[in-house]
Amino acid sequence: MRTDEHILEMAQQAASAARAVARLSAETKNLILHQMAQGILQHDESILTANARDLQAAQSAGLSHAMLDRLRLDHPRLEAMAEGLCQVARLPDPVGKELSVVRRPNGLIIRKVRVPLGVVAVIYESRPNVTADAAGLCFKAGNAAILRGGSEATHSNDAIFDAMLAAGRSEGLPNHAIQLVKTTDHEAVHALLQLEQYIDLVIPRGGESLIRAVAEHSKVPVLKHYKGVCHVYVDRAADLDMAVKIVINAKCQRPGVCNAMETLLVHEEIAEVFLPRVADELISQGVELRGDERTCGLVAQAKSATHQDWSEEYLDLILAVAVVGDLEAAIDHIQRYGTHHSDVIVTADDKAAQRFTREVDSATVYINASSRFTDGYEFGMGAEIGISTGKLHARGPCGLEELTTYKYIIQGTGQIRQ
Amino acid sequence: MRTDEHILEMAQQAASAARAVARLSAETKNLILHQMAQGILQHDESILTANARDLQAAQSAGLSHAMLDRLRLDHPRLEAMAEGLCQVARLPDPVGKELSVVRRPNGLIIRKVRVPLGVVAVIYESRPNVTADAAGLCFKAGNAAILRGGSEATHSNDAIFDAMLAAGRSEGLPNHAIQLVKTTDHEAVHALLQLEQYIDLVIPRGGESLIRAVAEHSKVPVLKHYKGVCHVYVDRAADLDMAVKIVINAKCQRPGVCNAMETLLVHEEIAEVFLPRVADELISQGVELRGDERTCGLVAQAKSATHQDWSEEYLDLILAVAVVGDLEAAIDHIQRYGTHHSDVIVTADDKAAQRFTREVDSATVYINASSRFTDGYEFGMGAEIGISTGKLHARGPCGLEELTTYKYIIQGTGQIRQ
Repeated sequence: MRTDEHILEMAQQAASAARAVARLSAETKNLILHQMAQGILQHDESILTANARDLQAAQSAGLSHAMLDRLRLDHPRLEAMAEGLCQVARLPDPVGKELSVVRRPNGLIIRKVRVPLGVVAVIYESRPNVTADAAGLCFKAGNAAILRGGSEATHSNDAIFDAMLAAGRSEGLPNHAIQLVKTTDHEAVHALLQLEQYIDLVIPRGGESLIRAVAEHSKVPVLKHYKGVCHVYVDRAADLDMAVKIVINAKCQRPGVCNAMETLLVHEEIAEVFLPRVADELISQGVELRGDERTCGLVAQAKSATHQDWSEEYLDLILAVAVVGDLEAAIDHIQRYGTHHSDVIVTADDKAAQRFTREVDSATVYINASSRFTDGYEFGMGAEIGISTGKLHARGPCGLEELTTYKYIIQGTGQIRQ
Repeated sequence: MRTDEHILEMAQQAASAARAVARLSAETKNLILHQMAQGILQHDESILTANARDLQAAQSAGLSHAMLDRLRLDHPRLEAMAEGLCQVARLPDPVGKELSVVRRPNGLIIRKVRVPLGVVAVIYESRPNVTADAAGLCFKAGNAAILRGGSEATHSNDAIFDAMLAAGRSEGLPNHAIQLVKTTDHEAVHALLQLEQYIDLVIPRGGESLIRAVAEHSKVPVLKHYKGVCHVYVDRAADLDMAVKIVINAKCQRPGVCNAMETLLVHEEIAEVFLPRVADELISQGVELRGDERTCGLVAQAKSATHQDWSEEYLDLILAVAVVGDLEAAIDHIQRYGTHHSDVIVTADDKAAQRFTREVDSATVYINASSRFTDGYEFGMGAEIGISTGKLHARGPCGLEELTTYKYIIQGTGQIRQ
């Protein structure tokens, strides 16, 4: 069978499985999730053997240490994967939740009810744990899932998928409710992205180039974030002790993630006091500073930033720093170079905070807290399928609710329109 | 200036105007809307003169009577347009509404707040009233709007726009908050659809070919409905008197609109009694019937339906009719040929109703009521910008709330992540 025909068949099977998944009770879905977790633990040896094959191939291919680490599985990682499925089972079922109800003068009762999206495709790169995480979240939200992992993790993904599937079926997982694309050719992804009549949402997870390629070619709506160029703006009315703490945390606590700060903006009235102080602290933590002209005038160790630095997602111990004339200039900077992810104002001035939170057009805006909290668990939503920097459908951390839509269910007693 | 440069400039101006619009209070927005309504009434003669020019050109070009009627303005239509703006002014402001608030164990207060989308582009065809309707809705929801009307209505749209703008400015309508694309070349639309960095949403309003062309070429997310192939399924447990009333209303009350019924499905156990009866009634209302084999066996006047009929949006006094073996077959038919718009079950059987509403994947599903109620006013939402048959972002009638998104505003007291 040709790749595009094979993918079409998978998508059609997913669309019909979606009806069966949508019918399952929360109890049944939770039993299946627990069973899938068990399946992973019971097949630990075969999963690790498969993973060893992937690792060997990756080593021969000369993949970087970081890539190898992402690919590597061990017992603790398998246990975390299984525990992830059990955690999803413990989250409340979003399906069927009544979002609003109105009774119209003509007696019609209009209920707006949360329902599954239908079919969700997840396209991801080297981390094999996504196979379990994405399957669990899509399934709990009542969707059929089509998973497509990276070619470097193909044996690991197959083994995890097979273990979950066999276990889930024993508790009533519907046929084709979770499918893994096993062909590794690139054409499969392209074929998937054309099938808007069967697939309701595609979620790319991985580097910016993967996400851009998916967004560029997809006819199916895409839930995505490109990158996180997150800002901390230290206002003239900031508590400077607090500001230092927040800046250090936002930059250094885990620099390689999307909610880490990449650019620091400082109000000119406090720059002379604040910048040398925070710079000392940052440099002592190993951070390289790239400043605008005024920053370099105040901090001798700062290199000169180029225009490119303002848009850079370093994901590393590097920080761009600029002095701004006022709140408006800070907002302008963020609007121009930011990525609508997470941005922070440190200030004791309520008016400044209000203006910042209203005008900075980001999924998450913080007053006096680190940007590092943008995360499903930290928000109390549980596991997330990703963080959306788009504005349509869902914004910020996306968990179970964001994997659903709604419909209007209207109960009448024979009403007709006059 | 080249068209694409001109459109780019408009989009950039809209993006910066969006910040100013987002800052306006509900009171200011309402004053501006009332003033814009006044502007239309005060410039009635110049609008009607402009409209006469469009009508003359359209007549010379040989446009159909239906097209000419859509294009034509008169005093009552101008008054309705002005009243539409006043009605939008009276609707509650969606911006700033708190959708949820949680206090986390670390003291962070996470508020999910409704905010404007930013910049909304509306691309429409011959009805000039859309210029006022779309401007009013986008503006009230806190967005900057870019409007692009049909070339056949260009003088009318210009005159309405100029009247609204002059009046709105006198009450503080921000510059570039509402813009009309005045060049009529097709390139302008194409250029608009590429500007995903400035435009947050595009809404095509018009025939299926316009909507498909926009969806095909747009990099900006599109809120759309292609067509409404709406079904009424008369279950074996239906009250047949009620079913006749609903079928007649759904087909005949206004056949040219998207929420009119196009296909009738009848359970085989009642077909022999119900079909001849409802057919008599439909035929007496001038409806042409196109039936499957079993329908034609029961209703002599029915023509044979072709496969094409099941997907047809007639928008006319024509009805496709099929007999189905059971509820599941009815759902299968709707899933296969429907357009996710509005579908009805007539039944006294709660279980059947529940299964229908759960499994029919449409924006609006009805139990014992006519499909004709899918409409912003009938839902109590007020004016609508359109009806979405997509599942992402918004589904069904889209009013002010659907022209917004949300952001998370997080208030801290110096929290950092451990």
